Amino acid sequence: MAQQQRSEETQAQILQAAGQLFAREGYDSASVADICRLAGVSKGAFYHHFQSKHALFLELMEEWMAEQEQALGEIRKQAANVPEALLAMSIVAREVFDLASRNIPIFLQFINRAGEDSVRRALDRYLRRYRNFFAALIEAGIAEGSLRSVDLQQAVYAALSMSLGALLQAVVAVEERDWAQVSQDAMRLLLQGLEARASSG
Amino acid sequence: MAQQQRSEETQAQILQAAGQLFAREGYDSASVADICRLAGVSKGAFYHHFQSKHALFLELMEEWMAEQEQALGEIRKQAANVPEALLAMSIVAREVFDLASRNIPIFLQFINRAGEDSVRRALDRYLRRYRNFFAALIEAGIAEGSLRSVDLQQAVYAALSMSLGALLQAVVAVEERDWAQVSQDAMRLLLQGLEARASSG
Repeated sequence: MAQQQRSEETQAQILQAAGQLFAREGYDSASVADICRLAGVSKGAFYHHFQSKHALFLELMEEWMAEQEQALGEIRKQAANVPEALLAMSIVAREVFDLASRNIPIFLQFINRAGEDSVRRALDRYLRRYRNFFAALIEAGIAEGSLRSVDLQQAVYAALSMSLGALLQAVVAVEERDWAQVSQDAMRLLLQGLEARASSG
Repeated sequence: MAQQQRSEETQAQILQAAGQLFAREGYDSASVADICRLAGVSKGAFYHHFQSKHALFLELMEEWMAEQEQALGEIRKQAANVPEALLAMSIVAREVFDLASRNIPIFLQFINRAGEDSVRRALDRYLRRYRNFFAALIEAGIAEGSLRSVDLQQAVYAALSMSLGALLQAVVAVEERDWAQVSQDAMRLLLQGLEARASSG
């Protein structure tokens, strides 16, 4: 038990060190030796946990996705209905934006490697998870009567496009701006196209 | 005059060769020597036209932006009103998507270097140009009465987020899909939140 715990701690240390190094120096510049040095582990320990730097990279993205999904899930639980949840996801989710901006250099390096098959497949898997998340949310909104019975797939791609596009603008913008607010305002406009309404807008 | 023409041809050859090499091998792997060899020009000629590989990269992005703006401008001219123009931009603009997917590896490398100050500033400049384009379009829509008098800035960020997000999904997706159509469907949903309407939807 103690050994398993130590093993998990070692893995967490390696992931944390790699995350720091990738963000600071880029994926290519950070070597396995650098990661081991920062994590304070041997190369043997590294390769016990990860087949390669590439595998570690994928695991890091996996962790990031899980954190984001958990944050979004929490917001969902606390919202009274689906439109409120979608809005709250952009504004309450400042943590998600913070989390994202810490991880964005890694995320971009990842996208940059989308030409490689394994990376492309992993990214596609992540996007599919987000689409499933949005699909369940929008379906619930239609069921509860807060959203029009729009084409589910179209609404999912629209919501995901909106979120990804806001994130992308936040990454490259020079100006300081409350990107969570920008993202929420954009989502509100989209929602006005999605929401069930009793009277004209 | 003939000399100036030859000079412009040389510059165009260098840009074209660089675009091919960057897309195929990546920005870092393609050396100035490689670019010169493919373009069939001397290093002297290269440095006569471009201060550095970095400057060439920025010029390439500049060209790409200009091509895209021209394509979008053409669509705008042919549309009867602004909502139609926004929709047509996603579907008629298959060329833009094609153009984009040819240039996306370069685009991504560019984003990947957003940590560098000059690159970040250039990207910000490009995004500002798109925002100006969308702002003029949406303003015209409000003026002609086809769009509600929404907050202009919010609508601009929403439309740009939607376009960038659709593009990003198109880049990383594994599955074959008509991304121009996905983009149009998403824009239509957003438009339903933006459009002036006489009766309830």
